[in-house]
Amino acid sequence: MINQLVANIKKTGAPIVVGLDPMLGYVPQHIQKRAYEEYGETLEGAAEAIWQFNKAIVDTTYDLIPAVKPQIAMYEQFGIPGLAAFKKTVDYCKEKGLVVIGDVKRGDIGSTSGAYAVAHLGRVQVGNKTYVPFDEDFATVNPYFGSDGVDPFLKVCKEEKKGIFLLVKTSNPSSGEIQDRLVDKRPLYELIGEMVAAWGGDLMGEEYSYVGAVVGATYPEMGKTLRKIMPKTYILVPGYGAQGGKGKDLVHFFNEDGLGAIVNSSRGIIAAYKQEKYAKYGEAAFAEASRAAVEDMAADIRGALEHI
Amino acid sequence: MINQLVANIKKTGAPIVVGLDPMLGYVPQHIQKRAYEEYGETLEGAAEAIWQFNKAIVDTTYDLIPAVKPQIAMYEQFGIPGLAAFKKTVDYCKEKGLVVIGDVKRGDIGSTSGAYAVAHLGRVQVGNKTYVPFDEDFATVNPYFGSDGVDPFLKVCKEEKKGIFLLVKTSNPSSGEIQDRLVDKRPLYELIGEMVAAWGGDLMGEEYSYVGAVVGATYPEMGKTLRKIMPKTYILVPGYGAQGGKGKDLVHFFNEDGLGAIVNSSRGIIAAYKQEKYAKYGEAAFAEASRAAVEDMAADIRGALEHI
Repeated sequence: MINQLVANIKKTGAPIVVGLDPMLGYVPQHIQKRAYEEYGETLEGAAEAIWQFNKAIVDTTYDLIPAVKPQIAMYEQFGIPGLAAFKKTVDYCKEKGLVVIGDVKRGDIGSTSGAYAVAHLGRVQVGNKTYVPFDEDFATVNPYFGSDGVDPFLKVCKEEKKGIFLLVKTSNPSSGEIQDRLVDKRPLYELIGEMVAAWGGDLMGEEYSYVGAVVGATYPEMGKTLRKIMPKTYILVPGYGAQGGKGKDLVHFFNEDGLGAIVNSSRGIIAAYKQEKYAKYGEAAFAEASRAAVEDMAADIRGALEHI
Repeated sequence: MINQLVANIKKTGAPIVVGLDPMLGYVPQHIQKRAYEEYGETLEGAAEAIWQFNKAIVDTTYDLIPAVKPQIAMYEQFGIPGLAAFKKTVDYCKEKGLVVIGDVKRGDIGSTSGAYAVAHLGRVQVGNKTYVPFDEDFATVNPYFGSDGVDPFLKVCKEEKKGIFLLVKTSNPSSGEIQDRLVDKRPLYELIGEMVAAWGGDLMGEEYSYVGAVVGATYPEMGKTLRKIMPKTYILVPGYGAQGGKGKDLVHFFNEDGLGAIVNSSRGIIAAYKQEKYAKYGEAAFAEASRAAVEDMAADIRGALEHI
C-alpha cells in the first residue's frame, strides 16, 4: 500500500492528505438541517450530517489528492452511528481511489494490539468465514508499549500489504513533556525514530517502507533530524495550516527526490469556507472552498519543494 | 466515581476487576452455535456470541466483584456489531451495580483527546439534545502526548465525576524499551508517575484521586516505587494470572489501608474453564468456573494483604 500511496502522490503531484475530522461545528447548517429532518437531533442525525459533509468534500477534491486521513475520535464521539459513518467514509474514499489512513492511534500489549491490527488493517475469522472489519489502508499507532505492541501490526501489514505510521514526535505544544526527554543525551523521539527505521527495515515496498512515522509540522528542526535517522520511512506530517506549519518549514521532512513525506491538513481544508480567505464561496459552496484550499496548499508545498 | 469504586471494593472485600476481553476462542461452542444459528457466521453472530458470553459471566460473578474492565479492541475487531456488543456490555454491567473501566487506551492531541473524552466519559451535543455515547465510568488513557493530550480528559472527569487510569508502566515484556529509559538518571515511568500524581491533585475524591495509573503486576518492584510517588493515586494492575503475576507479588501496589490498587485478571477468569484447575466444571458450566476463579483470586490477594 506504500507503493500505492507513492504512486498517488506522483500522479497528483501533491504530497498532501486531507484530514476528514468533521466536528459538527464545521458542518454547514443546511446539511445539519437536512440530516436532522430525516433522523432527528440524534446520534444517527449527527452521523448522517458528517457523512454527507465528508462525501461532498471527497467528491469535490478526490482528483487533486492522493489520500485522506479520517480521525476516528471525531466519529467515536457519536457512538455506534458515528463509527458507522467512519466505516462508510473509509469505504467511499477507497472507491474513489484514495489511500485511506485511519488516524486511530491505537496501541496496546501484544494480544490486544493484535485485535486492533485486525480491526483496522486485517481480517477476522468468524466460524468458517472471514471479514474485514474497518479495512483502512494505513493506521496510526502509538509506540509507547515497545516492540511487542508494534509486532502484531507489522505482522498484519506484511500479510495484507498495508502500512502503519508510528507516533514519533506529535504536533501538539506539550509533546515535548515526554517525547523530548533526554535519554543518553538524545531526545526520546530520536530513539523512537531509530526503532521505527529498524521495524520498517523488514517491510520494504519499492522505495519506502510500509512502516511510516508521524512527525509534527510544528517541529521543523526535529523533522530535519528525523528525516536523516529514517531515510526509507514515509513521514506523515500533521499540523500544517491551522496548527501553524507552513510549506517552507516543511522541506526538510522530504527527501531530495521530493518524496518521503505527506502533509496533512484537516480544519484548514474541510472548514476552509469559514476562513476570510475563502469567504466568497459562502456556506452553500463549502466544498468548492475546500477544493480551493487544497489547490493553495498543494501549490504552497510544491513551491517550497522547488527550492529543496 | 472513584468514591463508588472504593465503596464497591470495601463492600466486596475484593480489590479485583474482571477483564471482559472475549476472544472468540474463549466462548464455549454451544454459545457460538446458538449465535450463528440466529445471525449466521457473521460479525453480528460473533458480536452476539461475545455478548451472551459476557452476560453469563457477569450474571454469575457480579455479587463478588466491584468492577469490570472490557477491553474495547476485542470488540472493535468485530467492527460495528462488535462495538455495539461493547456498549451493551457497558450498559449491562452498570445496571448490575458494577463500576465499568473502559480499557480503551485512547489519547491524542488536545482537540482530538477532547472527542475521545466525550466518546467514552462525557456527553455530546447534537442540535439541542445531548447524548452519552459509550458512557463508561473510567477510561484508560495513553500519556505519550503530554499534558495537553490529558487535559481534555481531566475536564470531562471533573464535569462528570468520572475517572481515568493513565498508562505509567505497562505489563508487557517490551514495555521497558521506552518506559524504562533513563531520564535524568531515573526511569521515564517514574517521571510519568509524578505527572500523574500532579494531574490528579486537583481532582480528589474522598480518599483517592479521580486520576489513576496503570502499572503492570509483572513489575512488582516498580509498583513499590510508584506507590510512593503516587500516594493518592489508585493503581490499576493488569497482568495477574495468565501474564504471570501472583497475589504475594502485589502487596506493594497497595497502601497500608489495604486500598489504592485494583488487580485485573481477564483470561484467568473468563476462560477459567479451560484451565486444568477448573476443568471439572466443563464447558457447559463455564460461568461457574469463572465464579470459582474469582473466589480463588480474591482469596489469594486477601491472603497476601493480611501480611502487608
